[in-house]
Amino acid sequence: MTGQVPSTVSPRYAQVATFMRLAHVPDPRDRDVVVIGAPYDSGASYRPGARFGPRAIRAESGLIHGTGIDRGPGVFDLLDVVDGGDINLSPFSMPLAIETATEALRTLLTHNRAFLMLGGDHSLTLAALRAVSGVHGPVAVLHLDAHSDTFPPVYGGTYHHGTPFRHGIDEGLVDPTRMVQVGIRGHNPSPDSLDWPRGRGVRIITAADCDRLSIAGVADEVRRVIGTHPVYVSCDIDVADPAFAPGTGTPAPGGLSSREVLTLLGVVGDLRPVGMDIVEVSPPYDVTGITSLLAAEMGAELLYQYWRGNRSRQDVYPPKPDRTG
Amino acid sequence: MTGQVPSTVSPRYAQVATFMRLAHVPDPRDRDVVVIGAPYDSGASYRPGARFGPRAIRAESGLIHGTGIDRGPGVFDLLDVVDGGDINLSPFSMPLAIETATEALRTLLTHNRAFLMLGGDHSLTLAALRAVSGVHGPVAVLHLDAHSDTFPPVYGGTYHHGTPFRHGIDEGLVDPTRMVQVGIRGHNPSPDSLDWPRGRGVRIITAADCDRLSIAGVADEVRRVIGTHPVYVSCDIDVADPAFAPGTGTPAPGGLSSREVLTLLGVVGDLRPVGMDIVEVSPPYDVTGITSLLAAEMGAELLYQYWRGNRSRQDVYPPKPDRTG
Amino acid sequence: MTGQVPSTVSPRYAQVATFMRLAHVPDPRDRDVVVIGAPYDSGASYRPGARFGPRAIRAESGLIHGTGIDRGPGVFDLLDVVDGGDINLSPFSMPLAIETATEALRTLLTHNRAFLMLGGDHSLTLAALRAVSGVHGPVAVLHLDAHSDTFPPVYGGTYHHGTPFRHGIDEGLVDPTRMVQVGIRGHNPSPDSLDWPRGRGVRIITAADCDRLSIAGVADEVRRVIGTHPVYVSCDIDVADPAFAPGTGTPAPGGLSSREVLTLLGVVGDLRPVGMDIVEVSPPYDVTGITSLLAAEMGAELLYQYWRGNRSRQDVYPPKPDRTG
Amino acid sequence: MTGQVPSTVSPRYAQVATFMRLAHVPDPRDRDVVVIGAPYDSGASYRPGARFGPRAIRAESGLIHGTGIDRGPGVFDLLDVVDGGDINLSPFSMPLAIETATEALRTLLTHNRAFLMLGGDHSLTLAALRAVSGVHGPVAVLHLDAHSDTFPPVYGGTYHHGTPFRHGIDEGLVDPTRMVQVGIRGHNPSPDSLDWPRGRGVRIITAADCDRLSIAGVADEVRRVIGTHPVYVSCDIDVADPAFAPGTGTPAPGGLSSREVLTLLGVVGDLRPVGMDIVEVSPPYDVTGITSLLAAEMGAELLYQYWRGNRSRQDVYPPKPDRTG
Amino acid sequence: MTGQVPSTVSPRYAQVATFMRLAHVPDPRDRDVVVIGAPYDSGASYRPGARFGPRAIRAESGLIHGTGIDRGPGVFDLLDVVDGGDINLSPFSMPLAIETATEALRTLLTHNRAFLMLGGDHSLTLAALRAVSGVHGPVAVLHLDAHSDTFPPVYGGTYHHGTPFRHGIDEGLVDPTRMVQVGIRGHNPSPDSLDWPRGRGVRIITAADCDRLSIAGVADEVRRVIGTHPVYVSCDIDVADPAFAPGTGTPAPGGLSSREVLTLLGVVGDLRPVGMDIVEVSPPYDVTGITSLLAAEMGAELLYQYWRGNRSRQDVYPPKPDRTG
Amino acid sequence: MTGQVPSTVSPRYAQVATFMRLAHVPDPRDRDVVVIGAPYDSGASYRPGARFGPRAIRAESGLIHGTGIDRGPGVFDLLDVVDGGDINLSPFSMPLAIETATEALRTLLTHNRAFLMLGGDHSLTLAALRAVSGVHGPVAVLHLDAHSDTFPPVYGGTYHHGTPFRHGIDEGLVDPTRMVQVGIRGHNPSPDSLDWPRGRGVRIITAADCDRLSIAGVADEVRRVIGTHPVYVSCDIDVADPAFAPGTGTPAPGGLSSREVLTLLGVVGDLRPVGMDIVEVSPPYDVTGITSLLAAEMGAELLYQYWRGNRSRQDVYPPKPDRTG
Repeated sequence: MTGQVPSTVSPRYAQVATFMRLAHVPDPRDRDVVVIGAPYDSGASYRPGARFGPRAIRAESGLIHGTGIDRGPGVFDLLDVVDGGDINLSPFSMPLAIETATEALRTLLTHNRAFLMLGGDHSLTLAALRAVSGVHGPVAVLHLDAHSDTFPPVYGGTYHHGTPFRHGIDEGLVDPTRMVQVGIRGHNPSPDSLDWPRGRGVRIITAADCDRLSIAGVADEVRRVIGTHPVYVSCDIDVADPAFAPGTGTPAPGGLSSREVLTLLGVVGDLRPVGMDIVEVSPPYDVTGITSLLAAEMGAELLYQYWRGNRSRQDVYPPKPDRTG
Repeated sequence: MTGQVPSTVSPRYAQVATFMRLAHVPDPRDRDVVVIGAPYDSGASYRPGARFGPRAIRAESGLIHGTGIDRGPGVFDLLDVVDGGDINLSPFSMPLAIETATEALRTLLTHNRAFLMLGGDHSLTLAALRAVSGVHGPVAVLHLDAHSDTFPPVYGGTYHHGTPFRHGIDEGLVDPTRMVQVGIRGHNPSPDSLDWPRGRGVRIITAADCDRLSIAGVADEVRRVIGTHPVYVSCDIDVADPAFAPGTGTPAPGGLSSREVLTLLGVVGDLRPVGMDIVEVSPPYDVTGITSLLAAEMGAELLYQYWRGNRSRQDVYPPKPDRTG
Repeated sequence: MTGQVPSTVSPRYAQVATFMRLAHVPDPRDRDVVVIGAPYDSGASYRPGARFGPRAIRAESGLIHGTGIDRGPGVFDLLDVVDGGDINLSPFSMPLAIETATEALRTLLTHNRAFLMLGGDHSLTLAALRAVSGVHGPVAVLHLDAHSDTFPPVYGGTYHHGTPFRHGIDEGLVDPTRMVQVGIRGHNPSPDSLDWPRGRGVRIITAADCDRLSIAGVADEVRRVIGTHPVYVSCDIDVADPAFAPGTGTPAPGGLSSREVLTLLGVVGDLRPVGMDIVEVSPPYDVTGITSLLAAEMGAELLYQYWRGNRSRQDVYPPKPDRTG
Repeated sequence: MTGQVPSTVSPRYAQVATFMRLAHVPDPRDRDVVVIGAPYDSGASYRPGARFGPRAIRAESGLIHGTGIDRGPGVFDLLDVVDGGDINLSPFSMPLAIETATEALRTLLTHNRAFLMLGGDHSLTLAALRAVSGVHGPVAVLHLDAHSDTFPPVYGGTYHHGTPFRHGIDEGLVDPTRMVQVGIRGHNPSPDSLDWPRGRGVRIITAADCDRLSIAGVADEVRRVIGTHPVYVSCDIDVADPAFAPGTGTPAPGGLSSREVLTLLGVVGDLRPVGMDIVEVSPPYDVTGITSLLAAEMGAELLYQYWRGNRSRQDVYPPKPDRTG
Repeated sequence: MTGQVPSTVSPRYAQVATFMRLAHVPDPRDRDVVVIGAPYDSGASYRPGARFGPRAIRAESGLIHGTGIDRGPGVFDLLDVVDGGDINLSPFSMPLAIETATEALRTLLTHNRAFLMLGGDHSLTLAALRAVSGVHGPVAVLHLDAHSDTFPPVYGGTYHHGTPFRHGIDEGLVDPTRMVQVGIRGHNPSPDSLDWPRGRGVRIITAADCDRLSIAGVADEVRRVIGTHPVYVSCDIDVADPAFAPGTGTPAPGGLSSREVLTLLGVVGDLRPVGMDIVEVSPPYDVTGITSLLAAEMGAELLYQYWRGNRSRQDVYPPKPDRTG
Repeated sequence: MTGQVPSTVSPRYAQVATFMRLAHVPDPRDRDVVVIGAPYDSGASYRPGARFGPRAIRAESGLIHGTGIDRGPGVFDLLDVVDGGDINLSPFSMPLAIETATEALRTLLTHNRAFLMLGGDHSLTLAALRAVSGVHGPVAVLHLDAHSDTFPPVYGGTYHHGTPFRHGIDEGLVDPTRMVQVGIRGHNPSPDSLDWPRGRGVRIITAADCDRLSIAGVADEVRRVIGTHPVYVSCDIDVADPAFAPGTGTPAPGGLSSREVLTLLGVVGDLRPVGMDIVEVSPPYDVTGITSLLAAEMGAELLYQYWRGNRSRQDVYPPKPDRTG
């Protein structure tokens, strides 16, 4: 295991910026989780800029140690994680970009256990769903977002950042009865926009529902619906309110606080995660870097929760007895 | 009814920016609600910039569809709303500006049912109160703000952005016993600053009170005090905390979250709104646009709540049976 | 003729933002010049954001009167110009976007004399070249830019913002022997990048050449090469140094000052312009608005120069005797 | 008493910027509280910039009156407070800076009752602890922060902004069994980072604990642990979430809201405060000024709470009967 | 003489911010020059914000020493200069503000030799002209600006930031035949806008003229027109291009570089300056502070040139033999 | 030779950010030039932030190809260059940091031909001078800067960012009679500040001199003074005017344009460069990235000029016949 550049030796603003200052391993093998960038925003319907997301998240992630408060051992003592660099995606052809991403993520899963994809816009989650379902069959989905992203195509393109879960369900990659969307709010293209996912069994927990249920109640509901089915966790940063995440493509007021988002991610360790993403960070609108920093913190949390969710499963994650004592 | 430029045809960042991409109708007639800009900041006591408020709110409002989550029909299937452009206000003479605004709003109400004014600083709410009370008599007021705005004149001018409700009460435009102020906080010019409104019967619910009562409790109190009296709803964006609304003239830490503000606006549909404003958005301090976006979202919410509050009143708002089914 | 909203009546920050506060006429007929927005950035190879260009240029252009120093009558006393709004372009399919733009610009030229296109990225200049050459045959080109934009396709797409003049020459829309590029500098994908345009007769005047020749010398050279052939004028805002135009997609240090750019545009009135564009303004990177303001000023200058270049040609521009005296 | 420049005479953006527009008294004597700047950031491990903190807090504090909502008399009718200017601290030698600060603060306490130090980074709290413990013996500490700041030295320096309380406890300046840390969260250099303070009796209330206990519950715990022991109150602005305080050196998502922070400061009046600081405001990252404004508001609150906490103690704070009636 | 806080003792970012860290003397007497702030922007026709100008210029001026390259003694060894604080100006009544400013500046000149006014918008230069002409009779004017500011009233107010020199000439405060305007450019409200000043004998040197004449030639022309007549020097920061001074109220592309502006100010020492101002710095639009810094540098230059221009005149400026050797 | 990630395969915003997307080689051997980061700002006397300089320059450098206009082969066909990552420098002990940097740079020169150091503040140039003089003896220096950086220690520290050349001359690392400083301007701590370097033979060419001599004349003078002596080239980004380089520690108005700076660097190829640096880029103040981009462009230029300056010297740079044809 390579772990982070130690902050006792190298100040946290130093060195070439990789995610959490992990080793950059372009063609990784036999890793627990590969962090992989998907610099892409040609699927954005409003503010672009997410193509710079992976770099910005990497830059801000230098501040984050691998050891959370009151957790015991650090995540990089538990998991072997590297930064796999970026997938080279065409900004000029969306079908090509999604195909390239699908192929790259499939290759990653052939040689490693899981990935954490840093977007880029939400379009590429379709590639991720194709890749993980190729290994695990139709997956459950925990989807944090302001928007349902089960919308139909528009403007003459098949794909865009509002369609990944529609395609995912249509292509049989996702089991919609084991899918939970949290944080949905705001305005929709038409009054029946949410009929499509609901009609297929998706459980939608709106931002208003979060107030009513509390985050603990939301977590209960997530556990109830998803259980121990292999689950893909997709985090659109706009699940957080624009105050906490101004740097995103389609910000929506009335969202979750960073504390609510981070608390909610704690449920992932009670599930069985098989792939994860954090998408829609748009650095040009993230003037003070707080959006990228939140994304980086969410990434660190997801890595830890990935370990929690898989620590007892020897097929996916053989124990490393010396370090977890 | 004209409705929005459809986002399925025109991307939401395209076309000349009107509020929510509604039709621009300079001299509107027979509309349910006219959105009207009041670009003005000569009444600002600290940070100016609100003169650019209407344009910035229009620009950010392109992102917002007219259809809220779980609401059934979209607001523009229910209400005939247009963007009436801006009132031409002198930045160099406050009395003239208030007179011009009063006249313009009166003319609007002669030909249309109601308006939603986009400020501009809070001074011009006096013009709005003069106009609506001309039609409805002394009105109730629901006032969201960090500041009471019942302060006396200062610096040799009769009017400023901290005086509209003092003049409104003094001129008999407002029934102070049916006025509720929500979100008041921070520091005042003198220890007895709130004695004036309280002495006239205004119900002040501070930000600390919001914590104690919860937003649902605040809404109960609003309904209790205002009932079904014709009510003017005035929203100073600084009711929200600076984290949610940095772009404003006199920001005050300790304010409401955007979710609290939007939830609270839900009470407006239980009242009988006759005029509305959103003021004090100062774009030069709104670096990432989140303040204007919140204002735009509040505007969309107010339009919907206006319909709810007036849907059963045939005098003000005759039913449009085909569209509300 | 409609002209600008008069700044003696309406402050320049007021009213719905159209270009220079001209009338918004969605389907214009019989105008001298139509200002038309092309909100698009799916052809950008580095920083996106130009999709917000037309709106931002419109917003900043409010400051600009139609009357230049020491020019005599104002341009809107001379020319009938309106803001035609934006072309609705798909962000998700570049071939579709270019086809849509071509069609829209052709329609404009069927009913009006000329257009000034506000980008958007440089890809769409191909559409403009197709439209103007349909009327005028292969056109001369005056091209202000840091980059030659005669590069080959890349990343699996046929078009991008570095290709318009390559396609334009290949398709026979441009007469390369009457094409001048000014301001070219910086770094190229390969050592022979400029061999392609030079091999076809394009006259390249680099930023270093501008120092050597002076702007007056550059103007001489432009007049010499282009003469009175119908000329399309394409202004990539990155011809200006990043200090003057930070808000652009591929900024290149070492560029022209705003004074040099504006002075150089004075040559256009000595030519015979038939179409014009200003492209590559990316508002997310234009924090203080100076890039959009420069673009707006360039637009005002181009309108005036358009009049100068066509004032004696009765076929294109019949004299309006009462106003030019 | 000098009090503030009256806002009825001088607009709040006017005059040379001192804290809350108090009198600038370079060598103060016999004051209740001296506000003193410590412009310094050579102890910062990540984002520097706190050297500009005192000036920025002063600039934003102009907006704040000395009279809080529903408090009765204004704080400057109760307390004699002046702005003592800045301590001149070497940016080039940390030991020298800490020594200089210690000496300056000791001198302040020789001639005045207490100080409110505006940082500057957290390193200098060590100087403050040395100075207050010289008067009051080992002090209790109320410490609001995202980080425990009881970390060991690193990078070959004895001091840095993560060490003040480690040195404070080691030097016997602080009674760790009467120390409470609130808001701790995020990631630590090593799994046992919090063992050190806990092992010495420090009560750590994490951000997650704040959720569980509520702010009222946290206040109870603070009162229980600290009681009426002389207490130093140290506020790292990063106790607030980056949404509320983006301008800081080591921002940590998941923090408190400004309302939570300000509410929590209300407990200080139930204690016996003898010195106070607000540190780690980094203006270069505080684009819209909201961090400095929050710090200024916290300063105003601390001054008021200082009066509350000492109003009955004639040794420290003799009553001023004429003004508190 | 008080001079600057020495930068060898106090780092240049430290201490309460006065202009160039001079002593703050609220009611100055017998000084050579008093720096006086005029925080005001109610005369702005486009972007406001100049009310924060004096504070921002003070903040950035900390970086500037009083000793220029190759000049011999520092200016504060030659001149006794203090920061007189700000004039308290009503933002709500322009006539009152101008009257207050006139009175304050007259008082300054009664007790001191000259002032350097830091704006604030250009309206207040009328007050300055009234004050200096009261002492010196009709003055010559050196006016650096993008705009002529001899425009008529508009929007129902007598004064605004485009009128000071029109009133100044009309009131006989200025000798228009000894007035030079440098840097004029851009667009005017009407074709005959410059006829008014030219008709009264004002010499207008446009930005284009600066190119043609070179800065040395402009200086020659200034010397020729103004000679040794008492001259008021008024510097609108927008004489510089928006690249060099983005933070201003009505930016105009095509302006001077900072080097050109600073070089041009060198001519002031060949004249006989009796009053000076630097106006129209709008900090909300000055994101990186470069506009305020340029204004501060110009202020330092003007102070030095004031000494040069008056060093031989014993009535105004008695020699201080010990320090100028 | 590794060269850049090809932009035809990977978009220029993609992949882990190294300088110009060169290979990251932590312990390089046998390279022509190693680009090495020195993230450090503890020597800054005003605005800090340069510790983030190397990362920001790397991020912006992705846009830059290795092939300049009209240069023939690309620099990475000529030179073997890699990104050596960052030196780990203590922010808490300046002597330790300079010692660490000296040792790291000496090691680099033991195994490679030359380095291009990306700062970081100017303090570390002392380390570079120690390293290069260890190989080449006392070196000539070409120093681009607003400040002479030959100032004495201050604030109790031996080193700071204004001292490197004073120590360099005092330690005999620099031959002052072969040292040229270009761009010096602004204000100095004392009237005799430049006496020290001039007294030792340093040739100072001020910004005003650049106007008088023209850049071509400055280059002549540089060639005359330095000749073919081994020369260290040190570029403080503040040689450029704040309009072109706002993101720096001690900006000084009146500086060079980017075109002047880049043109001037062309002289380096006529000299015999043995080491190079670009320092004082402070990203927190570089809101739109143009400072880092200029620094990156200067780095690309220096690499090319390094090749030019050494291409005929077989000892230092053996020809690579196949690629330079």
